Amino acid sequence: MSEMMWGGRFQKAEERSALDFNASVSYDCRMYKEDIAGSLAHASMLADRGIISKEDLEKITGGLLKIKKEIEEGRFAFSVELEDVHMNVEKRLTDDIGDAGARLHTARSRNDQCAADLHMYMRRHIAKLAEKLIAAEEALIGVSEKYKDVILPGYTHMQRAQPVLFAHHMMAYCAMLQRDFERLVGCYEMADASPLGACALAGTTYPTMPKETAEKLHFSKCYGNSLDAVSDRDYLLQFLSFASICMMHLSRLSEELILWSTGEFGFIELDDGYSTGSSIMPQKKNPDICELVRGKTGRVYGHLVALLTVMKGLPLAYDKDMQEDKEGVFDTIDTLRFALDIYAGMLSTMTVNGARTRAVLENDFSNATDMADYLAKKGLPFRRAHAVVGNAVAYCIENRKVLLALTMEEFKKMSPLFETDIYEVLQIENCVKNRDSYGGTGPEQVKRQQREAKKIVSRQKKLAAEWKEANAFIE
Amino acid sequence: MSEMMWGGRFQKAEERSALDFNASVSYDCRMYKEDIAGSLAHASMLADRGIISKEDLEKITGGLLKIKKEIEEGRFAFSVELEDVHMNVEKRLTDDIGDAGARLHTARSRNDQCAADLHMYMRRHIAKLAEKLIAAEEALIGVSEKYKDVILPGYTHMQRAQPVLFAHHMMAYCAMLQRDFERLVGCYEMADASPLGACALAGTTYPTMPKETAEKLHFSKCYGNSLDAVSDRDYLLQFLSFASICMMHLSRLSEELILWSTGEFGFIELDDGYSTGSSIMPQKKNPDICELVRGKTGRVYGHLVALLTVMKGLPLAYDKDMQEDKEGVFDTIDTLRFALDIYAGMLSTMTVNGARTRAVLENDFSNATDMADYLAKKGLPFRRAHAVVGNAVAYCIENRKVLLALTMEEFKKMSPLFETDIYEVLQIENCVKNRDSYGGTGPEQVKRQQREAKKIVSRQKKLAAEWKEANAFIE
Amino acid sequence: MSEMMWGGRFQKAEERSALDFNASVSYDCRMYKEDIAGSLAHASMLADRGIISKEDLEKITGGLLKIKKEIEEGRFAFSVELEDVHMNVEKRLTDDIGDAGARLHTARSRNDQCAADLHMYMRRHIAKLAEKLIAAEEALIGVSEKYKDVILPGYTHMQRAQPVLFAHHMMAYCAMLQRDFERLVGCYEMADASPLGACALAGTTYPTMPKETAEKLHFSKCYGNSLDAVSDRDYLLQFLSFASICMMHLSRLSEELILWSTGEFGFIELDDGYSTGSSIMPQKKNPDICELVRGKTGRVYGHLVALLTVMKGLPLAYDKDMQEDKEGVFDTIDTLRFALDIYAGMLSTMTVNGARTRAVLENDFSNATDMADYLAKKGLPFRRAHAVVGNAVAYCIENRKVLLALTMEEFKKMSPLFETDIYEVLQIENCVKNRDSYGGTGPEQVKRQQREAKKIVSRQKKLAAEWKEANAFIE
Amino acid sequence: MSEMMWGGRFQKAEERSALDFNASVSYDCRMYKEDIAGSLAHASMLADRGIISKEDLEKITGGLLKIKKEIEEGRFAFSVELEDVHMNVEKRLTDDIGDAGARLHTARSRNDQCAADLHMYMRRHIAKLAEKLIAAEEALIGVSEKYKDVILPGYTHMQRAQPVLFAHHMMAYCAMLQRDFERLVGCYEMADASPLGACALAGTTYPTMPKETAEKLHFSKCYGNSLDAVSDRDYLLQFLSFASICMMHLSRLSEELILWSTGEFGFIELDDGYSTGSSIMPQKKNPDICELVRGKTGRVYGHLVALLTVMKGLPLAYDKDMQEDKEGVFDTIDTLRFALDIYAGMLSTMTVNGARTRAVLENDFSNATDMADYLAKKGLPFRRAHAVVGNAVAYCIENRKVLLALTMEEFKKMSPLFETDIYEVLQIENCVKNRDSYGGTGPEQVKRQQREAKKIVSRQKKLAAEWKEANAFIE
Repeated sequence: MSEMMWGGRFQKAEERSALDFNASVSYDCRMYKEDIAGSLAHASMLADRGIISKEDLEKITGGLLKIKKEIEEGRFAFSVELEDVHMNVEKRLTDDIGDAGARLHTARSRNDQCAADLHMYMRRHIAKLAEKLIAAEEALIGVSEKYKDVILPGYTHMQRAQPVLFAHHMMAYCAMLQRDFERLVGCYEMADASPLGACALAGTTYPTMPKETAEKLHFSKCYGNSLDAVSDRDYLLQFLSFASICMMHLSRLSEELILWSTGEFGFIELDDGYSTGSSIMPQKKNPDICELVRGKTGRVYGHLVALLTVMKGLPLAYDKDMQEDKEGVFDTIDTLRFALDIYAGMLSTMTVNGARTRAVLENDFSNATDMADYLAKKGLPFRRAHAVVGNAVAYCIENRKVLLALTMEEFKKMSPLFETDIYEVLQIENCVKNRDSYGGTGPEQVKRQQREAKKIVSRQKKLAAEWKEANAFIE
Repeated sequence: MSEMMWGGRFQKAEERSALDFNASVSYDCRMYKEDIAGSLAHASMLADRGIISKEDLEKITGGLLKIKKEIEEGRFAFSVELEDVHMNVEKRLTDDIGDAGARLHTARSRNDQCAADLHMYMRRHIAKLAEKLIAAEEALIGVSEKYKDVILPGYTHMQRAQPVLFAHHMMAYCAMLQRDFERLVGCYEMADASPLGACALAGTTYPTMPKETAEKLHFSKCYGNSLDAVSDRDYLLQFLSFASICMMHLSRLSEELILWSTGEFGFIELDDGYSTGSSIMPQKKNPDICELVRGKTGRVYGHLVALLTVMKGLPLAYDKDMQEDKEGVFDTIDTLRFALDIYAGMLSTMTVNGARTRAVLENDFSNATDMADYLAKKGLPFRRAHAVVGNAVAYCIENRKVLLALTMEEFKKMSPLFETDIYEVLQIENCVKNRDSYGGTGPEQVKRQQREAKKIVSRQKKLAAEWKEANAFIE
Repeated sequence: MSEMMWGGRFQKAEERSALDFNASVSYDCRMYKEDIAGSLAHASMLADRGIISKEDLEKITGGLLKIKKEIEEGRFAFSVELEDVHMNVEKRLTDDIGDAGARLHTARSRNDQCAADLHMYMRRHIAKLAEKLIAAEEALIGVSEKYKDVILPGYTHMQRAQPVLFAHHMMAYCAMLQRDFERLVGCYEMADASPLGACALAGTTYPTMPKETAEKLHFSKCYGNSLDAVSDRDYLLQFLSFASICMMHLSRLSEELILWSTGEFGFIELDDGYSTGSSIMPQKKNPDICELVRGKTGRVYGHLVALLTVMKGLPLAYDKDMQEDKEGVFDTIDTLRFALDIYAGMLSTMTVNGARTRAVLENDFSNATDMADYLAKKGLPFRRAHAVVGNAVAYCIENRKVLLALTMEEFKKMSPLFETDIYEVLQIENCVKNRDSYGGTGPEQVKRQQREAKKIVSRQKKLAAEWKEANAFIE
Repeated sequence: MSEMMWGGRFQKAEERSALDFNASVSYDCRMYKEDIAGSLAHASMLADRGIISKEDLEKITGGLLKIKKEIEEGRFAFSVELEDVHMNVEKRLTDDIGDAGARLHTARSRNDQCAADLHMYMRRHIAKLAEKLIAAEEALIGVSEKYKDVILPGYTHMQRAQPVLFAHHMMAYCAMLQRDFERLVGCYEMADASPLGACALAGTTYPTMPKETAEKLHFSKCYGNSLDAVSDRDYLLQFLSFASICMMHLSRLSEELILWSTGEFGFIELDDGYSTGSSIMPQKKNPDICELVRGKTGRVYGHLVALLTVMKGLPLAYDKDMQEDKEGVFDTIDTLRFALDIYAGMLSTMTVNGARTRAVLENDFSNATDMADYLAKKGLPFRRAHAVVGNAVAYCIENRKVLLALTMEEFKKMSPLFETDIYEVLQIENCVKNRDSYGGTGPEQVKRQQREAKKIVSRQKKLAAEWKEANAFIE
């Protein structure tokens, strides 16, 4: 069948193994909606410009819609011999409607066609991911509101440092995902450009109107340089970078959920619906979902590295290496969608054990900074206050007690600056409440964060809805 | 000296090897300007809020400016025992001015201090990179205007495909760099947020005013969540992604310049000032710069992978792993600045051999698509026209001639649709001129690209100037 | 169905989405042969040790072989609810033969079972890859013998440097693949260790005999530490490293074949069976296979990065993240097998254009080093000889001639040391012939390389045959 | 100064920025010992073969040793103008001894010289790393013997699974490092090949004796193909792969030490000498070393990716991109040496809190598998035994007790198969003791592991000593 595609110059068919190696239809068939939408717009522009006749346009339109229906009903047989989704559709169209089908390829090449399909595919799936991302943000806000009074140890170096609100901790992740959304907007804007009209690499001698085709496809702009149009894969790399950072965020959250689920921490319990057991150890309840998401971070990083490697040092314009641009990106879309989706559900159903986190804090030194601040506020330079408290902690460890269990006498011995109000200052609730500097863990600050996060969510939803509408014509 | 930093609880000094392993001053001393600027602003806010006295502020300001001067005059001895730039400056300040120096650390931790310094450093260096990027864009526009009439073969699969203007080819790279600039803007905006006020991880009990400190440091916003503020390294990953994509673009251009410099292509000659010779082969003139830039792409990719790996699965808030965030980023800044700089010079001085590129085109089949289009415009469905031309090419190869050398009789035998105007159509200049569809390689299209690119450059310059001004206070 | 696996403690079934996310059967079903072979050996050992009865063993054996047959005849329905290949087989076995099937799981866990399957899978497929690698080596030796007289320019910095035999060039790639084989041997040896007996993580209280099971499975050794046995994925990383290096070699060869196929070089022509054409440009003949192999290098690098990322920082023993160990490895096996296979065919059928390479050499300065050596042998220190020839080349370029076209007078003017024998020395054939130092490009040296390479191939074939036999029982 | 290197053909000196970009002397000066050793051997071979005179050899030898002494005494001024260590040494030699120095470059190029230096450097530093690796293995064996009776929970999915000996856990890491050593042996063997004699790329017309030079440099073999010799960087990639896997192992151990150091786990305490405190929180004791090692894993992965990227698609023979082969490798050597070294010290000084780990086990269900095994041994198919125990665990959780606290009556109600010996079986010590299957956690098995590990260490030490001796001549 290769004759159909490149015809006369070749004296011998492609080797079967070469053909299999070359074929991409097993994965690029995912873009059939885009391929058909793209061809409809191209044909319509060709007719507008008088390059094909109205009759041809009608035949093409009818033929393409019929093919789409067959694919969606599972009745279309994709063929590896025809290499990719583009040729599968075109060949069938030509078989069905004859010369009119053959004319569809006028002033278009597989290079710009395939690029346009991928741009549309990305735009549409970025819009879908936006919804998932928003849902995950909302789940984080939700769980932060649900457990608004839970205090847990905040850590640095995995050592308990200062008490923080669980809600504050969750809102940190919400802030990360909201930054991810901003990056996703950048991805959408880069994807939202039409390469159609670039043809093989240099534009065409036909009086085409690429901006018109772009408009029909709801693209907000056209590539201004045809060589660039067919060889640009930046927008995919930018998407993979976004996805890598987003998965990194989820891997951090996963790590914490895994730790918090251990017997040693015991801060949370994941819902049974999001846990698994062991085939050999009946007592186990495993946070598999979290582990998988953490693990799948590797997969997404790998896809980023793969495409960066592919693109390194490639001369203009199109090289076949670029066919490697799709599988990793498609798998990344699936992975991220799945991970965000399942996290929204898992976060909403998990149980936080506030009694346990409180018990932990009562037996520790997370309030040591407050003790140092107390002294510093009374005029002791901070570095010296720090030293006093360091000695107090050492003394407590040796005597197996916590700071709140020190007698006033003991306090006085450590520094004459201590007064009885120190007991108030060292209460865990007060440690949290008193940190109401902007961005701090104080309850008022956390409420402000929730309020602002919801405003951002509202704006994001509006944009996601616009995107959805803009891409609806493809479905 | 560790006592100074964490004092009383420890009974034993750090092992020398552990200390060396921990120390970061050998590279983070690059941030001394930021560290001092940050401390000045913090002290000023503390005084505004009545947390330290005016006298302390004066002492601190005087002390810090003295230290800055010493560093800039090469008279400041950084010490590994003091781990990092922050402690080196602080220790010295305390030695110089006593308690006032010790009070500077009030309501601030190394965690937010170090994060703030890095934010400022990135912002300032992104602003510098912006200028280099613009200069490289201008070099590309410049060389595209200088050789505006040169036609060279456009390639797909490294096979000559269709003739394109050299200017068009250069403008494709300009378009890439202009997209890189857009991504750089995203990096700047992400870097432009102040983490100061987050302290160790949870904010502070002091009545600080983080937004005021941010303003003093020309930050356009503050982190709203303290845990996020000290543990966020997204903006570095986003920068490394930007840099990887930008280096990828340069690697593609490098590959082409290397190929064009070969004896086989012979399309360009790099200036002697940007070439090297061989220690053993006297005839060699090597495009080392291009090779190095292509090679250094690996280095930047590696830094991206490194930081993605570091951040994977890290629990909140600060973990020491994050100390690994700087060296790769600093090296990336240096690499990219150097690469962009040297490319601007190299592009401006290279010679393009238009006679050679033209000779190549005259002996090839780059005009075959025009022949097919010719037939298609006369009504032959494109796929059939393609087959006719495929046969013509095969015929020509067998008979060692080019398409323009076919007689009218030969043409007619291939298709009766051919008329004498085919000779005009197949002229290389016409192949280029006739591709004046939007984005195509026609001279008018290329002029439009140059015009639009210059407009973009103007806007970018304005922004870069604003950035420069915003960061001037640090210098 | 999760009850079957972890039963009583759970009060709620797994969410459907969680279940889909967890399931691995879509890809781990590739290991069904190994899973069944492993279970057969385990059951046999259990019976040997009196842990299960002979009757149970018979039932298990019969049941497993029946399942294998069904799978191979395409009659076995794998179920996602049962998560993976292991549970699919076990559940069915228990349905078929009752309690005997349930006893198969005695003294074994999915952790060691799954690890053992993957070890066997790798061992078997490494053996298959060995054959493909050998075939590619033979193809390189073959083409180097077929075109034994062809001389082409050798390059450094992509600038013509010195003439080399095409055969020498091919043998360089053969040497790379032969080193790859050595690395593959290391991978085989690491894979060739049985984790069975480790159970979940700590061994078992049953009187099992892991060494006996290992022997039944033709493993040459057992893991000595059960925690290590279930959490080790080194051998996969080692394999991915091997594969990355091997693909890197193929990417270099691909790059050269692509360059040599350009109109500008014109050194080779790939067989039509391994080339493709263009849908829009009838004159094109594209080296798609080479481009794809070069591109797929990225994919393999990505898989390596992915698994390195997954394994970073994972605590002992098994974590679910490790489920991510398979897809990338399986895809790497497929990619490499395909690439080696198709390269063997493509190399054997390509045509080398010796007339063209010779013509290139005659019009260039690749013999300049010989001219410098000539002077140096007459006593001029090499660095000075180099300078003389550098001037000669510059003179020739200016006067548009090559070194062999210089008159004796011109030679003498450059250095009185030149005699008429310089003309002999500068002949391309002599440049090659005279480089007969060990490893040099002289014909005798190349013949030696071919001889030695064939000896290595013989040894490799013997080993590959042994491997094949050792793994035959799994098929 | 570039004239010296490539002389006559160039009409213009290299741009300063290009020169800086090209220069590598800032890092390749680390190879000065190798460079001089290599030149001494080359000169000696040249004299043996009559290519240079004995007098020249004497002058060269004296001159080179003088330069070495100056470098080692810090009196040699390296110059960026001279690009690299090779030219710095050569230029100085020629300045010192005249023509004899210029003759040293006969039959050698920077390509094979630089490759040989790097081979020697790697071989020598691999030998040093071997010693560090062995020391880390010994530290692990040591700590496993020191705390031979400590039992701690073994985990899967970070959930307590079954009790294991702390010694068993440590020996798992020892097994990993011992495999790393095997991979290091592979690296040594690959590095241990001499590229000298390949010259620029094609060998030489001089009657050199590469095998003799190799012998003088204690290389066990020569490259058989000159193109391969100068363009092979496999051995570096293989080393970076080894290092990545080794760092991955250390990152896993680091993660566990960090977790075990948390307040929640409390299993170990690192020595103060290997910990740091907090500048703001006086109670903190941070496992910085572990975090840094975990973080530095990213750096090493990054270097691997960098070099894989550099080498992808590079045509033969030498390309300047390859200059990027050194920095990452050097940094990897430093990182790994430092990490192994500091870990040996840190492991030897840490304290394990056996009372704490035991207390944890007594309040948990890690003995559940033993309960299931008990039933299975009495004839209940394992899957059913598993279900019984699953219910028992659920019952205990509800009633806040552990399995050992169940009354006989409760046991009987769960299964009539329970007898009073179940209490013995469920004792933690017995759970461990009874797992004495090969590789299990039973004390006898762990002693066997220690014995075998020590034997392996002995063999490794012998090899490391041989390597040390073989490389001593370079020092």
